Amino acid sequence: MVQEAIRRRNAGTLLRHVHLGGPVSRAGLAERMGLNRSTIMALTTELTRVGLVQEEPPPDTGRAGRPSLLVRPTDRCYVLAFDVAVDRLVAARVGLGGSILERREAARPRAGPDLHRVAEVLAHFGRQLHRAAGPEATCVGVGASYCGMIRPGDGMVRFGPDLGWVDQAFGVELGRRLGLGLPVAVGNEAHLGAQAEQQRGAGVGLDNLVYLHGDVGVGGGIIVGGRLLGGDGGYGCELGHMVVNPYDGRPCGCGSSGCLEAEVGERALLDAAGRPAELFGRDAIRSVVDDADRGDPMAREALRRVGDWLGIGVANLINLFNPGMVIFGGMLCDLYPGVASQVRGRICRNVLPVAREQVRLRTAALGGDATLVGAAELGFAPLLADPLGLLAASARRR
Amino acid sequence: MVQEAIRRRNAGTLLRHVHLGGPVSRAGLAERMGLNRSTIMALTTELTRVGLVQEEPPPDTGRAGRPSLLVRPTDRCYVLAFDVAVDRLVAARVGLGGSILERREAARPRAGPDLHRVAEVLAHFGRQLHRAAGPEATCVGVGASYCGMIRPGDGMVRFGPDLGWVDQAFGVELGRRLGLGLPVAVGNEAHLGAQAEQQRGAGVGLDNLVYLHGDVGVGGGIIVGGRLLGGDGGYGCELGHMVVNPYDGRPCGCGSSGCLEAEVGERALLDAAGRPAELFGRDAIRSVVDDADRGDPMAREALRRVGDWLGIGVANLINLFNPGMVIFGGMLCDLYPGVASQVRGRICRNVLPVAREQVRLRTAALGGDATLVGAAELGFAPLLADPLGLLAASARRR
Repeated sequence: MVQEAIRRRNAGTLLRHVHLGGPVSRAGLAERMGLNRSTIMALTTELTRVGLVQEEPPPDTGRAGRPSLLVRPTDRCYVLAFDVAVDRLVAARVGLGGSILERREAARPRAGPDLHRVAEVLAHFGRQLHRAAGPEATCVGVGASYCGMIRPGDGMVRFGPDLGWVDQAFGVELGRRLGLGLPVAVGNEAHLGAQAEQQRGAGVGLDNLVYLHGDVGVGGGIIVGGRLLGGDGGYGCELGHMVVNPYDGRPCGCGSSGCLEAEVGERALLDAAGRPAELFGRDAIRSVVDDADRGDPMAREALRRVGDWLGIGVANLINLFNPGMVIFGGMLCDLYPGVASQVRGRICRNVLPVAREQVRLRTAALGGDATLVGAAELGFAPLLADPLGLLAASARRR
Repeated sequence: MVQEAIRRRNAGTLLRHVHLGGPVSRAGLAERMGLNRSTIMALTTELTRVGLVQEEPPPDTGRAGRPSLLVRPTDRCYVLAFDVAVDRLVAARVGLGGSILERREAARPRAGPDLHRVAEVLAHFGRQLHRAAGPEATCVGVGASYCGMIRPGDGMVRFGPDLGWVDQAFGVELGRRLGLGLPVAVGNEAHLGAQAEQQRGAGVGLDNLVYLHGDVGVGGGIIVGGRLLGGDGGYGCELGHMVVNPYDGRPCGCGSSGCLEAEVGERALLDAAGRPAELFGRDAIRSVVDDADRGDPMAREALRRVGDWLGIGVANLINLFNPGMVIFGGMLCDLYPGVASQVRGRICRNVLPVAREQVRLRTAALGGDATLVGAAELGFAPLLADPLGLLAASARRR
């Protein structure tokens, strides 16, 4: 039984390597996993038999000799991934290997909507995507990203200030409406964005990184020693509510004032740049950065001001976490180029020299899809933990 | 060979249980370690043979029947622990089980002294303690706590603002002068205080805690998911340099201003309370708290002001780490009772409700010895990793 458990876990590890790292030869897998070639061959054969991987010749390298076959994931299994973002509702079918095979998207009104409306829009998209996948493909998991604080385990939204949700059973409700008999794993958008950037984005290979996700507010996902910082209840990483301006801070959605998200969120920038209250969203942010590039004094002053608050926040985070990288995601992707020098200036002034020796600053490599990609990884987690067991159970259910 | 490695690791795990948890029956060990009784008996016998543990009857419980013998650590092995604190140099001989068997202490002048002077004072104490231990006892490790940023691995002080040290080879120099042929493991005082409080103090059993260590400045040790937050270079946890007062902040030793340690360190409090510049140290802090208790308006205002900055810092840390406990150590042990209501008020205003549901605030249970106890644990680490291997090697060296 122990050997069977080891074999099943090794199958999961092998699948994770090709899922995250892309096509790789058996020899490469043997090296990465520290196993001998005959074990790798047995595992590959079994994963091929159940249809999760296939072997194929590599692209022509121009070199002589018989090339090694590459093991790569197939399209047999997929997950459904959902993203409840500040401006849109997204659903996607994502294949092993992480490619987004098909997606549906709807604009989201800024105010509301309630749990049932959100769950129904997403479930409708999900059912469409499931039908379009055809009967040969198997849905192996469902993951969702939500812009709020999520209770680990059951996908309860404890606090979603943006939609005004408190203690709403989002994961359960979405799962019920999908009707696939699969649980829905829900995560905070910034946590998932951080994990996605570490697995597939700017932070691949890094054990310590800080990811800031901007939209109306600013969320955070922090990787410490290779793992997401959860804290006791899974509610850590709330860097947006770090008080940076204790004197005349702007009011924050949390009820306090002077929080990082109140000082560098979308509204703070647009107000400082004198934009009308009806304007919002990433186009509005970009137009401020563009105007500043063209020399507009009000836009430049707005960026200077917001950049300084962001710089204080980032400097504090570097002192605390000594990360290898700080990644700016969501609308901060658009803002960061306009405030980079301000942020770097603060880091030079406020971070202890030994902690800033190595840190790099980057925008999210996955751009606006970081949260969706993170949600898909949540959905893949059960398959990667035990692919053979999960497929056997799924076949019995049919 | 694999079985031999497992046996040696299990011996270390057993020894760690009695070292940290105190005397325990073989049945208790079997349960905690998930091993059967015959394995526990074999391990106990072997550890008894090399003199690391002994078995003895428990204190009379008044119950009938033959009581189980308790396994407890002996005095055969000890470590030398050192603490370079802001006001004193401490050396101690610490036994398995964590008791401080003997100690030496010298006052430290506030300014300086240099590496060679500090290392010589400590090495002199260390040699005295070693001689006093007698020939039957074995020194199995050396650990030191230092009030500055330490490079993991070689005990290099990268930045010790308090003594004005930059890139000083403290660990190597102390080891050379001790002449015991043992490496000296060096850690940052607040990191070690946090670990000591988690292993033997207020935070036993907690996986997520924040420890603030106050003296001239404020250091931090943060436990995330059961492990000390190191970051990429081991320089994380620098919560003292979180900017809390960006407008009219007091100058900080790091070159910036408005850092948490500049606003809540010893000098900030004593200045606000109108104490003369010659006064310093924990007695001076206590006298401000006492005066405030007696109704002195200037002392009360000083505590209100410093407490509010401390509260902002602690609230930020709770939002980031969602810890089960925040522990105040060093001079903050003395300050905290005078500012607790101010700190709690800030937590209520600034921490998101779901993150403050469970958090407790405590002063360090180990008091002023937290850093020294942490240093001793550094010294014990090699023994606990492989007690049988280490003693065999040590016997060959004699």
